[in-house]
Amino acid sequence: MRSFLLVANQAVTRPFNLNGLPNAGRMDLACRFLAQALCVSHGIREDVDAFLLLLVRGGEVRTLSPDERNIGGIINKALSLSVLPAWRESSPGVYVAAKDLATLLDEHPGDIAYLVEDGEDIRETAGKLEGCLVVLGDHRGLEEEQEQLVRRRARYAVSVSPHALQADQCVTIVHYELDRAAEGPSEGKMSLSR
Amino acid sequence: MRSFLLVANQAVTRPFNLNGLPNAGRMDLACRFLAQALCVSHGIREDVDAFLLLLVRGGEVRTLSPDERNIGGIINKALSLSVLPAWRESSPGVYVAAKDLATLLDEHPGDIAYLVEDGEDIRETAGKLEGCLVVLGDHRGLEEEQEQLVRRRARYAVSVSPHALQADQCVTIVHYELDRAAEGPSEGKMSLSR
Repeated sequence: MRSFLLVANQAVTRPFNLNGLPNAGRMDLACRFLAQALCVSHGIREDVDAFLLLLVRGGEVRTLSPDERNIGGIINKALSLSVLPAWRESSPGVYVAAKDLATLLDEHPGDIAYLVEDGEDIRETAGKLEGCLVVLGDHRGLEEEQEQLVRRRARYAVSVSPHALQADQCVTIVHYELDRAAEGPSEGKMSLSR
Repeated sequence: MRSFLLVANQAVTRPFNLNGLPNAGRMDLACRFLAQALCVSHGIREDVDAFLLLLVRGGEVRTLSPDERNIGGIINKALSLSVLPAWRESSPGVYVAAKDLATLLDEHPGDIAYLVEDGEDIRETAGKLEGCLVVLGDHRGLEEEQEQLVRRRARYAVSVSPHALQADQCVTIVHYELDRAAEGPSEGKMSLSR
């Protein structure tokens, strides 16, 4: 099981215009985050939960395709519900609740891994990250108070690249390194032709 | 220098509706391919050329942001031009020409690397791929004739994952492995805090 949390501080929490995703607090980035967390070619990674204030469960989600506009529509529908402290399903596999960051982290049953520039190399840590909730900031990063809160709870602080990457690119790389770690280090060549 | 070519056989070559990118022959996939080839956080990889029948030059492109709708607009503008065998600029850094696959491959000054399921592990080959033109298929893969044509010209056949991934995810992983290879294998921990 893999879980990802995007802390999207700028993203709007009211319904927004699908023609202007970047103007809805960089909702385009949130959409791509969900796409990269959940989608492979012609399918969904069923062992993934993706949190974006709202929770999208890979094993239950239906009619999710990887284009931003489709996912924007799913988020829009969730945001049109009145939210309560407990999770509520807005469309198949998509859940919404009013929870603060601390509550969400404390409720996660596994360890927390924080994706951050000064973290340990993911190639060294990938074998330990399965089951973790991986926490990422948006294009501006976490606020200082959020950062302290996450660092206090995080078992791992992990860096994915020498370059500053977008949240969705980081998610793709985390999946890639975890997929490789799951294959075992000694297998060498990997192929799809099995 | 890095170059990527997406062979998007289904993508339309006439102007299309920005509200229906998936219905324009999976133009959403083409848009994400360009975004992942060219964008890092808050910037463009200036040492990248991305080919999609049309050529987008990282060092010259202006006003490109990573959301699909923005990039869809840039492609739309290019497709509204009448195309000639020679490259023609449709917007800053974006060039369009009528070339077949063989011509495009033959004109590339560096080696060709074909991203394919039964290829060599990218982790073993990344050090040799800088300067290559990396060729990818869309969600249906190359047609048989295209496949033979590319394999005949390709110096490297490379596999990126044990999973079937989308073209944009493959591009992110190629950049990731090439970035790491460029850092040198002995550096160990990578960090953004330099």
